[in-house]
Amino acid sequence: MSGSSFGKLFQITTWGESHGTGIGVVVDGCPAGLALCEEDIQVYLDRRKPGQSRFGTPRKEDDAVTIQSGIFEGRTAGTPISMVIYNKNHRSADYSEIASYYRPGHADYTFDCKYGFRDYRGGGRSSARETAGRVAAGAIAARLLAAAGIHFLTYVKSIGPVTVDPARFDAREISQNPLAMPDAAAAAKAGEYLERCMKAQNSAGGVVECIVTGVPAGIGDPVFDKLDAQLAKAVFSIGAVKGFEIGDGFAAAQADGLTNNDAFYYDENGVLRKRSNHAGGILGGISDGSELVFRAAFKPTPSISAVQETVNKKGENITVQVKGRHDPVIVPRAAVVVEAMAALTLADWMLADMGARFEDFLQRYQHEGQ
Amino acid sequence: MSGSSFGKLFQITTWGESHGTGIGVVVDGCPAGLALCEEDIQVYLDRRKPGQSRFGTPRKEDDAVTIQSGIFEGRTAGTPISMVIYNKNHRSADYSEIASYYRPGHADYTFDCKYGFRDYRGGGRSSARETAGRVAAGAIAARLLAAAGIHFLTYVKSIGPVTVDPARFDAREISQNPLAMPDAAAAAKAGEYLERCMKAQNSAGGVVECIVTGVPAGIGDPVFDKLDAQLAKAVFSIGAVKGFEIGDGFAAAQADGLTNNDAFYYDENGVLRKRSNHAGGILGGISDGSELVFRAAFKPTPSISAVQETVNKKGENITVQVKGRHDPVIVPRAAVVVEAMAALTLADWMLADMGARFEDFLQRYQHEGQ
Amino acid sequence: MSGSSFGKLFQITTWGESHGTGIGVVVDGCPAGLALCEEDIQVYLDRRKPGQSRFGTPRKEDDAVTIQSGIFEGRTAGTPISMVIYNKNHRSADYSEIASYYRPGHADYTFDCKYGFRDYRGGGRSSARETAGRVAAGAIAARLLAAAGIHFLTYVKSIGPVTVDPARFDAREISQNPLAMPDAAAAAKAGEYLERCMKAQNSAGGVVECIVTGVPAGIGDPVFDKLDAQLAKAVFSIGAVKGFEIGDGFAAAQADGLTNNDAFYYDENGVLRKRSNHAGGILGGISDGSELVFRAAFKPTPSISAVQETVNKKGENITVQVKGRHDPVIVPRAAVVVEAMAALTLADWMLADMGARFEDFLQRYQHEGQ
Amino acid sequence: MSGSSFGKLFQITTWGESHGTGIGVVVDGCPAGLALCEEDIQVYLDRRKPGQSRFGTPRKEDDAVTIQSGIFEGRTAGTPISMVIYNKNHRSADYSEIASYYRPGHADYTFDCKYGFRDYRGGGRSSARETAGRVAAGAIAARLLAAAGIHFLTYVKSIGPVTVDPARFDAREISQNPLAMPDAAAAAKAGEYLERCMKAQNSAGGVVECIVTGVPAGIGDPVFDKLDAQLAKAVFSIGAVKGFEIGDGFAAAQADGLTNNDAFYYDENGVLRKRSNHAGGILGGISDGSELVFRAAFKPTPSISAVQETVNKKGENITVQVKGRHDPVIVPRAAVVVEAMAALTLADWMLADMGARFEDFLQRYQHEGQ
Repeated sequence: MSGSSFGKLFQITTWGESHGTGIGVVVDGCPAGLALCEEDIQVYLDRRKPGQSRFGTPRKEDDAVTIQSGIFEGRTAGTPISMVIYNKNHRSADYSEIASYYRPGHADYTFDCKYGFRDYRGGGRSSARETAGRVAAGAIAARLLAAAGIHFLTYVKSIGPVTVDPARFDAREISQNPLAMPDAAAAAKAGEYLERCMKAQNSAGGVVECIVTGVPAGIGDPVFDKLDAQLAKAVFSIGAVKGFEIGDGFAAAQADGLTNNDAFYYDENGVLRKRSNHAGGILGGISDGSELVFRAAFKPTPSISAVQETVNKKGENITVQVKGRHDPVIVPRAAVVVEAMAALTLADWMLADMGARFEDFLQRYQHEGQ
Repeated sequence: MSGSSFGKLFQITTWGESHGTGIGVVVDGCPAGLALCEEDIQVYLDRRKPGQSRFGTPRKEDDAVTIQSGIFEGRTAGTPISMVIYNKNHRSADYSEIASYYRPGHADYTFDCKYGFRDYRGGGRSSARETAGRVAAGAIAARLLAAAGIHFLTYVKSIGPVTVDPARFDAREISQNPLAMPDAAAAAKAGEYLERCMKAQNSAGGVVECIVTGVPAGIGDPVFDKLDAQLAKAVFSIGAVKGFEIGDGFAAAQADGLTNNDAFYYDENGVLRKRSNHAGGILGGISDGSELVFRAAFKPTPSISAVQETVNKKGENITVQVKGRHDPVIVPRAAVVVEAMAALTLADWMLADMGARFEDFLQRYQHEGQ
Repeated sequence: MSGSSFGKLFQITTWGESHGTGIGVVVDGCPAGLALCEEDIQVYLDRRKPGQSRFGTPRKEDDAVTIQSGIFEGRTAGTPISMVIYNKNHRSADYSEIASYYRPGHADYTFDCKYGFRDYRGGGRSSARETAGRVAAGAIAARLLAAAGIHFLTYVKSIGPVTVDPARFDAREISQNPLAMPDAAAAAKAGEYLERCMKAQNSAGGVVECIVTGVPAGIGDPVFDKLDAQLAKAVFSIGAVKGFEIGDGFAAAQADGLTNNDAFYYDENGVLRKRSNHAGGILGGISDGSELVFRAAFKPTPSISAVQETVNKKGENITVQVKGRHDPVIVPRAAVVVEAMAALTLADWMLADMGARFEDFLQRYQHEGQ
Repeated sequence: MSGSSFGKLFQITTWGESHGTGIGVVVDGCPAGLALCEEDIQVYLDRRKPGQSRFGTPRKEDDAVTIQSGIFEGRTAGTPISMVIYNKNHRSADYSEIASYYRPGHADYTFDCKYGFRDYRGGGRSSARETAGRVAAGAIAARLLAAAGIHFLTYVKSIGPVTVDPARFDAREISQNPLAMPDAAAAAKAGEYLERCMKAQNSAGGVVECIVTGVPAGIGDPVFDKLDAQLAKAVFSIGAVKGFEIGDGFAAAQADGLTNNDAFYYDENGVLRKRSNHAGGILGGISDGSELVFRAAFKPTPSISAVQETVNKKGENITVQVKGRHDPVIVPRAAVVVEAMAALTLADWMLADMGARFEDFLQRYQHEGQ
């Protein structure tokens, strides 16, 4: 079944494996007339690319994007925007052994169960490299949203057992340390933790948090297509995500109603506000005008060089050490992927909401139909 | 935008408000030939219906389902199955005051933002009563899955601060206590906690856990339509859900890779198994043949009788006490809704997977096309 | 597979068989705030209902619609609008024999091939009665479009060999004769033709033409979702349709380019117009602001009482005379179904077009996101 | 809105303009394990490419396809298959004048109405070149169908006023003449007609007929997704199509029921057959096991060098002669596009039908779920 498309109106379709021609994405449904160039995309991709710190894979990939269609005279033309990031630095020889066994924690076994065989080079379609297409597409969505005053702040909230201290939260820190944490002390501690992981040929997971400001109230649908449900699917579709929560999330399950309800009030300018934001900006599946706040839990990178038990395709129980250039932690590079998926979701549902009211329909069409 | 449909092949569409004619659902795409009668649906609905314990709303609703189409001579005909649960015990007079203000924690304000006005009687479309349609549809999906050996065990894992003790886990207990907890001692403690909540005109949340056995390996798609992403959306679309996790979930973010990877091995019969199930039964978005294990966090019921700050539509800051017959906790009744959404998701993707391999396509059609 | 839904944003889902509880439809995605009551729907259904002339089935069905949800205080609430038309005048006894054989020209055989069995009473799901749900939904779409100045003129252009004479075209005639033809003389001749068909226990087909005025330029998508492609699918999904054409249609295939191209010009008010409308109002899949003109060819009603060859399920070649109350011609009653499907298509794509331009997106959201 | 995708399970997404990098398509949902190489695609593209006869554009385009993903060791991997046909022989200078006015019969004006501006080079996205992506994708679908014994015979039935004589029908002729007509005499006459068109700087239309053999009974859905409705949409989405009919099509509207009904009978081997095929292989929207027969009417190529009236964007009425290398007739090259769209439609619905029956679901999953 076709599962490589996302979105209903602002729709993207990705393609590509780790070791083929490249990774690509087609963005269909972006409104016409948005100024856009490759540099707008590249800045997003650069936040994802490997080889930027000692905590990421030492692979060097410049991940340069090429726009192949859908732009005319510097603006989106309303037609599909095809983008490709060509693969460069792949050495297929590395992966020959992997074909014979199933790496624990990877999709090797499940791909074989589903399709009967798999492209085993570098993880094939299940490689984290697949997310490059999402980020390229998300960059366009984010640009559309920025024009409407919507902005993202995405960072690493925890790595392994090390969590950011809210009291030391400093947004400027995010781009200052290689772990994208808004707390220099936590970043330092997390760095030490990762050093120990690397020495043990082990890996770490972590939590990404995303805050979205400027989202108008009224976005999302009340039943199956709740905005939080769409965000949950969007973020959970990123490899290695094992949990998603919005606002207080799992902590809300332990709270009582009086504490957890966000009281409404009118401020001095008569603007409706909430005293708190336990809800994370969504009520009944529809945005309430306050900040969206959500988190995604990433499991530790399954690719590790430590000795592991597994099986081979000959029916034998074996032990393996997965060779290769692994990220000891994927979380800092995953932050921009989370942001991209959120931007794609919001763009899609903001387009959908344009026709939610009869008065808007009438305003758009009444004068024309006469 | 049309957001009241769920599923691609096994698709459901729900309709209805708390105080209209009733709650309905159309199930389209159920395979033809499945034996089905109203009683098969009713047993599911009975797990959801209110008025069953002192911890639920004292409203009595018998929630009797009527099948209106799609069944012929006791079997599904392949055509849409329309079901309705007529509303009976509604007293619209209760809700007149609610029209004038926004209840904290409810969708009143966001509905007005989106649509310009709202059906304020009993929550209208955002009422928890909307889930009756999901449960009726989920009962059909579950019946389909049961024929393939897939079964669900769904229960309340925690209420407020009280959590089930894994060492005392007893599945038979689930139907023995009004809180659907698999641990009699925890249920007793949670009951005491709820009594205190009720006295304080307050409410509680909790966590539902669902275990699915018998799911074949190979279900789900590798990119945007990962099985866990679909489950996340399905479950997050239930009102009051604030978090979703699979397998070790958020705890996995703190683990290291060597611990978190589930080692494969062949058992004495040569069957491939995993030594652990931190993954919760899904690798790379595709089921791996082990149990699916996932959890949903529900916030405390927002409808409470305690005094709360809020605003009215005249632009005033006011305090309110929301009258009515409220559930102090929704979680025990929500368990079957979680199960229904999971069943719908699995049925949809198992149908989709039937065409994943060329050899299956060939087997189905080669003899016919000659 | 779920094939009983139509539309992407303005989506309808129909259910029901000829002899079950009734025929129903759920309309999801209608903008909130449109004034709507049952009478608005009923006037459309009355154009479709049987028993209105000697050329239709003598069955009396009042086809009264009930709205079950989605309307609050006389306006659409943005939530699903469920409507049902209960079955009344069905006599299942009539159909017992039909279960044993396959009626020529009907879906009996193909339903058995697809689903393994079928609801043989009155055609089950493949009954023309299924279209009642489309008409009820189409009435809502038409009301939405009317508010934007879009109107439909739908009529019978030909019955069997008798065609309307363009020189005698009179729109007022359409409601004056039982055949919905805009030409009294043609209607009289067609009536005579039908009398002969009825005496011979035979039936007739015909062509419906639909003219839509007031459609703004710019509706439809340029590639797979061309407006004419969507209309083609919409109209072809009506039972018994065997052909669809727009503008000059099949005649255009015989014309030359210079004749067939519609020349543009500015009229005295500087408004862009076309000297002709061979295109039927769509260029490159997008509406051009002139009238939409399209036609659907309906085959003769397959239910006839004349002796026919066929087979039974025991493997025998037999002859049959299909009993029952048949329409000798379905075309006059089908006109409103064609109109309904066109209205649904236009409503869907006009909603979609609201987000086609960045400037519209900006106008809708820029002030909010600040 | 995203309108560049087609299909639900076997889904394609096309991108590209006449004068950008190239024309591309992503095929998502093709079953895994189908042997496939570029040459399989190229043979289809070669049937569409220009420059093959004196009746097509003299432009030389070799239209060589490159597969970029989704194939592993010579077989489809179940993941998206990305293909691109790079643009080569474009001379943008030719089109500078076209930017200033609206060509009659083209989508220039409607693109401006929809998007506010357009890529005017070579028709941009509305160029017939867009169909190359469909053909590349259709080649894969056709290969899948061929494995199940389904084959296509597609040809030109008429050009302008010249129609194939059924008495002289010879399938081998189709590849023997440049007009793809199965009748040498008709092809010769059509050739003379086209010579006259070319001298007059005019163009011609025509009709394509497609016969599909080997389609199993039971494909298609009974209501909105009737197989003929899907084919109608698929074929009508090809630029320049103005009419579509199946079986007897518009002629059926003039026939009587007794004649038009196809009588069933069992042949000497006990196989159910039909005495005739007025229906064109589909009853009630579901294939009946006989040949699918349908036709598409193409309007004359709108690009002609004769003098035409039109308007420019300055608000003036002008006359133009559209320069460039035009096809005097597009129909022979369009035949393979019609075939491609039909193959895509059938592949999609055959995959969907795999889950239509409970017994098939059970056979696929029962043994696994234990």
